[in-house]
Amino acid sequence: MSSERMPSEPNIVYIGNKPIMSYVLAVITSFSAVDTKYVTLKARGRAITTAVDVAEITKRRFMKQLDVSGITIGTEEIPQEGGGTRAVSTIEIILRKTDGSS
Amino acid sequence: MSSERMPSEPNIVYIGNKPIMSYVLAVITSFSAVDTKYVTLKARGRAITTAVDVAEITKRRFMKQLDVSGITIGTEEIPQEGGGTRAVSTIEIILRKTDGSS
Repeated sequence: MSSERMPSEPNIVYIGNKPIMSYVLAVITSFSAVDTKYVTLKARGRAITTAVDVAEITKRRFMKQLDVSGITIGTEEIPQEGGGTRAVSTIEIILRKTDGSS
Repeated sequence: MSSERMPSEPNIVYIGNKPIMSYVLAVITSFSAVDTKYVTLKARGRAITTAVDVAEITKRRFMKQLDVSGITIGTEEIPQEGGGTRAVSTIEIILRKTDGSS
């Protein structure tokens, strides 16, 4: 509300089928902003595994002060061409920067 | 200890590359035992997506009284032929049977 640091979807990284390291870099970049304490990874379908890889690699190799503050799974109904929907699983992983130094 | 219903790893379903419905059936079967309130899904690598699918399909289609009581992610070092290790991501999803009726 009070400043320019409130984009419509702040600090969400959508995981798709790009190389894992491009998402790791996106997470690190998001956390580099002042006052960013949480970054959320969102993925669905086959990209769910990639989201877990991104969380683990970022934490283990690059930002040891991260922890996972929450994980939720769900199902989305994706509209299909020709009508109807297809159910696809989703995941959200919330990463939190703790007070440790990198 | 006291009867035959205490395997070494009770109520854990390991997710691999079989069809999703075979794991859904394994979860339903585990919960059908008397006193079983929790079943844990464990998966690593590409099977992580399958584990999420199994949790969601079991819950939405077959056992509406289930909820997800916890999800943890991690990394395992897998020994490689010829020495060295390879890091692979893991997930554990704990399903809980609540008091609702099916």
